[in-house]
Amino acid sequence: MLSADHIRALKQIAGADNCFDDKPHRLAYAYDATRMSLEPDAVVFPRGENDVSAILRYCNDKGVPVVPRGAGTGFTGGSLSAKGGVVLAMEKHMNQILEIDFENMLARVQPAVINRDLQNAAEELGLFYPPDPASQDYCTIGGNVSENAGGMRAAKYGITKDYVLALRAVLPDGSVIRAGKKTIKDVAGYNIAGLIIASEGTLAVITEITLTLLPKPRFTETAMGLFQSVEDAMNATYKTFASGAVPVAMEFLDNLTIRAVESAYKKGLSVDTGAMLITDVDGNTKDDVEWQLSEIEKVFKENGATTFYRARSQSERDAIWFARRNASQSMKFYGPDKMNEDITVPRSALPELLRRIKKIGEKYDHNIPCFGHTGDGNVHVNVMTNKQDAVKYHNAEKAIREIFEAAIDLEGTLSGEHGIGLSKAPFMSMAFTTAELELFRTIKRAIDPKNILNPDKMGL
Amino acid sequence: MLSADHIRALKQIAGADNCFDDKPHRLAYAYDATRMSLEPDAVVFPRGENDVSAILRYCNDKGVPVVPRGAGTGFTGGSLSAKGGVVLAMEKHMNQILEIDFENMLARVQPAVINRDLQNAAEELGLFYPPDPASQDYCTIGGNVSENAGGMRAAKYGITKDYVLALRAVLPDGSVIRAGKKTIKDVAGYNIAGLIIASEGTLAVITEITLTLLPKPRFTETAMGLFQSVEDAMNATYKTFASGAVPVAMEFLDNLTIRAVESAYKKGLSVDTGAMLITDVDGNTKDDVEWQLSEIEKVFKENGATTFYRARSQSERDAIWFARRNASQSMKFYGPDKMNEDITVPRSALPELLRRIKKIGEKYDHNIPCFGHTGDGNVHVNVMTNKQDAVKYHNAEKAIREIFEAAIDLEGTLSGEHGIGLSKAPFMSMAFTTAELELFRTIKRAIDPKNILNPDKMGL
Repeated sequence: MLSADHIRALKQIAGADNCFDDKPHRLAYAYDATRMSLEPDAVVFPRGENDVSAILRYCNDKGVPVVPRGAGTGFTGGSLSAKGGVVLAMEKHMNQILEIDFENMLARVQPAVINRDLQNAAEELGLFYPPDPASQDYCTIGGNVSENAGGMRAAKYGITKDYVLALRAVLPDGSVIRAGKKTIKDVAGYNIAGLIIASEGTLAVITEITLTLLPKPRFTETAMGLFQSVEDAMNATYKTFASGAVPVAMEFLDNLTIRAVESAYKKGLSVDTGAMLITDVDGNTKDDVEWQLSEIEKVFKENGATTFYRARSQSERDAIWFARRNASQSMKFYGPDKMNEDITVPRSALPELLRRIKKIGEKYDHNIPCFGHTGDGNVHVNVMTNKQDAVKYHNAEKAIREIFEAAIDLEGTLSGEHGIGLSKAPFMSMAFTTAELELFRTIKRAIDPKNILNPDKMGL
Repeated sequence: MLSADHIRALKQIAGADNCFDDKPHRLAYAYDATRMSLEPDAVVFPRGENDVSAILRYCNDKGVPVVPRGAGTGFTGGSLSAKGGVVLAMEKHMNQILEIDFENMLARVQPAVINRDLQNAAEELGLFYPPDPASQDYCTIGGNVSENAGGMRAAKYGITKDYVLALRAVLPDGSVIRAGKKTIKDVAGYNIAGLIIASEGTLAVITEITLTLLPKPRFTETAMGLFQSVEDAMNATYKTFASGAVPVAMEFLDNLTIRAVESAYKKGLSVDTGAMLITDVDGNTKDDVEWQLSEIEKVFKENGATTFYRARSQSERDAIWFARRNASQSMKFYGPDKMNEDITVPRSALPELLRRIKKIGEKYDHNIPCFGHTGDGNVHVNVMTNKQDAVKYHNAEKAIREIFEAAIDLEGTLSGEHGIGLSKAPFMSMAFTTAELELFRTIKRAIDPKNILNPDKMGL
């Protein structure tokens, strides 16, 4: 618990209207998408960088934990206060798009700008901000940077880190730094922006982000392939990329996922289909888009596609994407509780990964529907279980561990986009050597010696 | 000087054939492209990661400086031993392309692989490694990563850091770490690969690099525009990018540069031309390339281009590029000594930057020919002077400082691609605040507490 003195001091810094330690506020900022609940001692809404700096200076002095928070849409507990202290909620005041610089094709935003709002603002000027996590309608750019969020378009356009040109941030001792420049090239000094990205709020509090924008592609088309087996679909995925076509997205649904979506929404999906691939391609000319689609069709058919269908209208595009967009919420068909992991492997290892997951599911008698961004090797693995059934739940945990082991064995990663936070922290020693973990801790200790910034996250 | 004991120990680690402290070896590894000469006490050619680890462990123990070295093509002294010690020359044994993985479109290489060799190996498989620094025929991938090298194609394809998926590296205490994965997405743990990139060999010695490759574009075309003024050319540059076309390269030569090239090579360039822009565009279809060229032509003409010419053959492409490729070596036309800086500003600030450089040249009565990668805001500024003339040389130094000030004032950077090393170290306090410099030093001290790795670089 924070003392009355602490609360008074924080109110003095940020204003009484922006600092709360009542139960409703503490509860309202205790959750994220993990459904864990961890109450902070206080919630503070900084009015700007000066407030962030003063709050950090104070908390560092007093040893009070500080947890920066965007929209709380994370899947691994990154924005939860594991040790109490202050949640620094950026949403109220630090949510402005400061500038969209058309001439240099970049945007400068405060951390709590909603991803979708930035996408829309860019598109109004004929520009394009590619990273599109599934929570794009709610999640914030600051959260995206802190977690290095991905999304559907990563196969062609990469992830958040590929768009961050520069940051402003506050270090634990309250000092304000700039990192990076408004330029594509900048090699003066250490790549501090690169280090802060994906550090899950454990090294600095981001106060401003400069992002590169692209020209908006003039044409986009959608197509869909149906396959008899997951293996065929996985082969088609990685071979497509080697064909020269560069799909914006190449999304995958397995048979269990298709069944769940069909059961929930009755859209006429064939529940006998082994796997479905959905792909978007874009380009500046129709001809380029046509060429890519013809390459993809060829590869799909060479790899056993029983159907290849190109959307002929926006409503057909929406219909094709419907299944993918509603996959996650359909999972409850297989059980009340979901363990949702976002492992990622090199694309050519996808067929083997899916084979192993199937075996693990059989071993523990669990349904493990899989879908996701196979265009970049990222599979959302859903171990469906029931927390009320202790044996079943314990088996699900064992299955998850074996799935992580399979991913790492295939040169993949624990997390393609959700981060480590609290929920994947126990698995860090599986993925990293002692020397690697010690290096993380060395950096953390050096920059945050009193361990006030988002403590206990990432297994640090 | 290293003691005989040290030399004996190093010979025991790496083999007597791979460790030298004779004068010829020390001289042969004392230079880079700066023309400074700083002799190490010994030169060691590690046979692999185990040698690197054992050498670092030994040198860390004994407090002996270690300077990793690729091909020594750097412009800022990054590979020179500022404090004696050991040069770790990777070129002899650690120069293999370990794998080109066509299915996942990536390459795994040792640090001393020559950039061009990787490009060629990729192209043989229909793949493409975009970063192409001017020294691409000699420079090494390890050096490219350490300096975060750019090149001609950065405008469309970005720089080295955009291609590094994973590294293996050895920390100062000899421990071996892996950083990153063979996957586009990986958000487990701190972005250590991102931190090591551009750290100029001050944090770790890179022993293996995994790079992403792209499909090779099927069509590339070259065009050229002539302008009456630098300002017109700079306006055309940034407006082109806002048109939706994404030129691979947009290279610039000013009037002084054109005159120097013409004087050296007599190619029939018009010496009255104010400025020249050379652009490459690529794509998967002819139609896409045509569309981009037509957009560029339109923008060029709207911004005062007196000539727009499209190459009709490979030999015409080569002829157009000849002037740009030979710009650097033509500079001696204006004086025996060149101070060559690679400042970078947001593209829309290019007209103002060039105006200010012109004024600085007039103020100090120096010719300052400029050329470079204006497509990404990167200008090579050549202050031509004469070291024998003390007054002239002193004025050149003042001009350089004012040019840096102008770049920083225009939200640019000290270095777009050459790094800081020794030669730009005195300017670090101009570009960074005390808090920012202290953060660099905090990281350096934490990872290399005995300051053995490439000491005295980057103003640390």
